Amino acid sequence: MRSVMVKNQPAKSLFFIGIDGGGSKCRATIYSAEDNVMGTGVSGRANPLHGLSQTFESIQLSTELALKDAGMSLTDCKYLVAGLGLAGVNVARLYQDVVNWQHPFADMYVTSDLHTACIGAHKGGDGAVIITGTGSCGYANVEGKDISLGGHGFALGDKGSGGWLGLKAAEQSLLHLDGFIEQTTLTRRLCDHLKVNNALGIVESLAGESSSVYAKLARIVLECANQQDQASQIIVKEGAAYISELARKLFKINPPRFSMIGGLAEPLIPWLDKDVIARLSPALAPPELGATYFARAQFARKVSQ
Amino acid sequence: MRSVMVKNQPAKSLFFIGIDGGGSKCRATIYSAEDNVMGTGVSGRANPLHGLSQTFESIQLSTELALKDAGMSLTDCKYLVAGLGLAGVNVARLYQDVVNWQHPFADMYVTSDLHTACIGAHKGGDGAVIITGTGSCGYANVEGKDISLGGHGFALGDKGSGGWLGLKAAEQSLLHLDGFIEQTTLTRRLCDHLKVNNALGIVESLAGESSSVYAKLARIVLECANQQDQASQIIVKEGAAYISELARKLFKINPPRFSMIGGLAEPLIPWLDKDVIARLSPALAPPELGATYFARAQFARKVSQ
Repeated sequence: MRSVMVKNQPAKSLFFIGIDGGGSKCRATIYSAEDNVMGTGVSGRANPLHGLSQTFESIQLSTELALKDAGMSLTDCKYLVAGLGLAGVNVARLYQDVVNWQHPFADMYVTSDLHTACIGAHKGGDGAVIITGTGSCGYANVEGKDISLGGHGFALGDKGSGGWLGLKAAEQSLLHLDGFIEQTTLTRRLCDHLKVNNALGIVESLAGESSSVYAKLARIVLECANQQDQASQIIVKEGAAYISELARKLFKINPPRFSMIGGLAEPLIPWLDKDVIARLSPALAPPELGATYFARAQFARKVSQ
Repeated sequence: MRSVMVKNQPAKSLFFIGIDGGGSKCRATIYSAEDNVMGTGVSGRANPLHGLSQTFESIQLSTELALKDAGMSLTDCKYLVAGLGLAGVNVARLYQDVVNWQHPFADMYVTSDLHTACIGAHKGGDGAVIITGTGSCGYANVEGKDISLGGHGFALGDKGSGGWLGLKAAEQSLLHLDGFIEQTTLTRRLCDHLKVNNALGIVESLAGESSSVYAKLARIVLECANQQDQASQIIVKEGAAYISELARKLFKINPPRFSMIGGLAEPLIPWLDKDVIARLSPALAPPELGATYFARAQFARKVSQ
């Protein structure tokens, strides 16, 4: 190992960077040996399922921003050991594609974003997580056994996710604008938000767009549901029922802790079944720290061999 | 107008070619003045909503194949007056993009695929059509007034279409493979068809695929529904209920004729409501002939001005 200068202080070893890549953004954080944040960078989507080159670009950019934020030079990238938690790498072919990448790091370890999120949420301990953001999925890891459920992607699966809630709202609005159903608070709010007043306007705004565009509509559905709009409540309840059932499936392997994470976790929790809410614990650390723990463990194993 | 040699016979005028472009293929047919088919060509998707250059390539290729089929030379393209019925051109911006195309024809007239399908189905007369193929939509044209409903595209709308039926089948299969629901004839048949036995396999087969890939699964859903599989019947009935309601909305402007067209029309008809089935008449001519009628009328109007 070589030493590297950080903020004009000599450092004794390599640094670890945890990278969390998903359908809407990629977040990279360089951590000190004491888990303190040295620098963070955020870039665009990094889901190998939606394009490898974009994934690599997003990883590279978020890393560069993190290096800059840490007061390090871009060439210090080669002293970073990276832990990558990426959506989509449960597909064997994509995992191999990422592992084969001519990456700029000293070393790189790859696993799913679910795995690193779970490691983070439980500070390295066993547990279960459900992530509801742009997509939705569940993961549990107990005594080396793991289960992964959902996360099938937009528009195939991901019930209860932001993308799914947004899609359901758009469907309702189209049915209304075509005269199949009455106007509701939801359809009115959605049309106002998109500044459209006919079905074609909805299509022009949303056709072919990615799940992250749909996910931006999810807040409207949740707000309307909280304001007693029935159509919104039906959608949110259907999504929440799926998430509750997902949680119960994870509980089957008896995870000692359970956390909900992602941008939609907080607004969705009140809609979950009571038995699921009762088992909730706060996430202890972000996915990037989970990715760092993962990289440290893998690196230590390699070095000790 | 110049004369052009066809199969070594001198022809006295320009020829008309009708082109029907949609989400999965583009069909071009050159017709004689007596509506006889002189040559036909089929190429890939031609939906401006999914890419302009692909649309133009598909139009060009299907035209070349039709010219070849008619025993004409490729350079005879400049003696063809084209009628284009294209999905997506109800979006004003896309209509302009197509009209502005440096096309290879003597003249070109553009309208929606719904309009040309309707003109064809009723041999130029007023009427209504519902198209259920890869997508679904309805259109009626009565005394110069028209309505267009549905056709919002995959996965936003198009209930009851092949793409929608396939998506619902895939959703059911994922719910089964994740343990949320029991196996059904449908989920078993779908997994066999895709040669997969876990959720990841479904995702690998279908994630990010176009509606035409999903539409290939629709036959399985309809077959299972006809064999009394309950899960399939629920899906088909929901789709058919939407199509029946779509028909009743078109009936509001009193179309003298009503036809169902598209690859999924025939298997779907038995599932429609009786009042809708009672009003069905066979389509009299294909959309390409409708496109030709449209071009002839527009061309005659222009020449007479």
